[in-house]
Amino acid sequence: MKPRIGFIGLGIMGQHMVGHLLDAGYSLTVHDLRPEAVEPFVARGAARGATSADVASRSDVVISMVPDSPDVEQVALGPGGIIEAARAGLVYVDMSSIAPAAAVKVATELEKRGVDCLDAPVSGGEVGAKTATLSIMVGGSEKLLNQVMPILQVMGKTITLCGAKGAGQTVKACNQIQVALNFIGMAEAFVLGAKAGVDPAVILKVLSGGYAQTRVMDVRGPRVIQGDFEPGFRSRFHYKDLNIIMETAKRLHVPLPATGLAHELFAALMAAGRGDLDHSAVITILEDLAHVAARTRGEKL
Amino acid sequence: MKPRIGFIGLGIMGQHMVGHLLDAGYSLTVHDLRPEAVEPFVARGAARGATSADVASRSDVVISMVPDSPDVEQVALGPGGIIEAARAGLVYVDMSSIAPAAAVKVATELEKRGVDCLDAPVSGGEVGAKTATLSIMVGGSEKLLNQVMPILQVMGKTITLCGAKGAGQTVKACNQIQVALNFIGMAEAFVLGAKAGVDPAVILKVLSGGYAQTRVMDVRGPRVIQGDFEPGFRSRFHYKDLNIIMETAKRLHVPLPATGLAHELFAALMAAGRGDLDHSAVITILEDLAHVAARTRGEKL
Repeated sequence: MKPRIGFIGLGIMGQHMVGHLLDAGYSLTVHDLRPEAVEPFVARGAARGATSADVASRSDVVISMVPDSPDVEQVALGPGGIIEAARAGLVYVDMSSIAPAAAVKVATELEKRGVDCLDAPVSGGEVGAKTATLSIMVGGSEKLLNQVMPILQVMGKTITLCGAKGAGQTVKACNQIQVALNFIGMAEAFVLGAKAGVDPAVILKVLSGGYAQTRVMDVRGPRVIQGDFEPGFRSRFHYKDLNIIMETAKRLHVPLPATGLAHELFAALMAAGRGDLDHSAVITILEDLAHVAARTRGEKL
Repeated sequence: MKPRIGFIGLGIMGQHMVGHLLDAGYSLTVHDLRPEAVEPFVARGAARGATSADVASRSDVVISMVPDSPDVEQVALGPGGIIEAARAGLVYVDMSSIAPAAAVKVATELEKRGVDCLDAPVSGGEVGAKTATLSIMVGGSEKLLNQVMPILQVMGKTITLCGAKGAGQTVKACNQIQVALNFIGMAEAFVLGAKAGVDPAVILKVLSGGYAQTRVMDVRGPRVIQGDFEPGFRSRFHYKDLNIIMETAKRLHVPLPATGLAHELFAALMAAGRGDLDHSAVITILEDLAHVAARTRGEKL
């Protein structure tokens, strides 16, 4: 018999993930701070959970997908949190992207009450959630991962055990470092080239055909040249991830000069009110600095 | 009848390129500041040019492959330079990686004397030169490129006209920005992950399978984890390229904050005496900063 699943957090990502679980025939209890987010799923047969504790009391496996570390701590350990329905055998899988230290804290506290925990953040963005092709980075025990694997496979494609608790969040952080710097590299290349009078389409073609190739360039480069910053993955979420990374780096005494700079460039993107654009929009800050906005779009000035 | 080729600069790259041209049956006159570098090619039937001017006087197409902008200016415009043998119909293709402004200056001066010029820097490193798979980025006229295309195809695989004179050098600069930042992104990801206790092989696997993928990670990531920094492409050459990029950016009033930081990290690599390691060795500076050298190698401390 299939485990009963509880799902907390029906935002941009969560709504697609719950949809796939319903399609796969799982019995679901769902919860979100916005009651209206719950309705479409109740209409599809999901039960309504009044609180995270209520969700947990009616589920075998609880999944959460919420914005940030404090949200997960609230869901797991706060008043009305999972901890209030903690019991031996309950499984909690947090798929949010949060600080590794917060993931360890939550898992440690819940495990004291018999709850088995995994951190399982994802990459792939809204498209990955919609098409059930998320990459899922897992921290925790292999045995527990094997137990929930059929559930994760409903939502994602590549599922990797990264290490002990918190390791999924650490690898997600590493992923976001690399993606941010790949975007910034592309941005500085385009801006320099534009100001030197070279067609950005030529730069894209040459770089993507050689050693400089990156997947973000392949996927987003042509859209950046068109000035199309429709998300994808919103820059304010990447900024949040960079905040997590810098806090983690500080805690571990790891100087990350380039990631620190990426953090500041994303801070400038937030200051400019561009948080809902795709993260590739970090190029607009470099364009602003160089006063070349239109040129990297291939427009004649 | 095949054009007579002159080749100036028989270093790490040039020696392989001349070898391919000889194999292809071209008649060659070669020159290098180190007489001993010329001998093996004389033994294979190449003529010895006493100076760049001497090479030019005996050739239809002159190619140079020398370290930096001042070397090209010397070869082209200096005493004993190509300019002393300038004549209508002579073709000069500089394949060195130099400042776009220097490429424009050299071409402008030589064209006044009837010499047709292309800037045609390459990427692909020593392996690309050896296997004749270089990417060649060309600035100049399409007509001239078509004329020398058979010669370039002996040395390279992907040959792209990037724009007017200097555009080849500009795109090479863009390429080196992206490659440097891809390496630094990988480095900071590995160092953070290492200090958090995650196996770098897991980080590599997850990142290279998703949106964070880069070609440098695919090619060099496994060797970085092994601590293998055999070049490849020597970091001192990438530092030279970063110097060119920052000078170009200054001239064009383009702020490049992340590339500027990359420049400083490579300066630290030079200061540490690691200029002959592969450019992926920039990770060692970040390891030094975090005191984690051995850990990103997967070694137990």
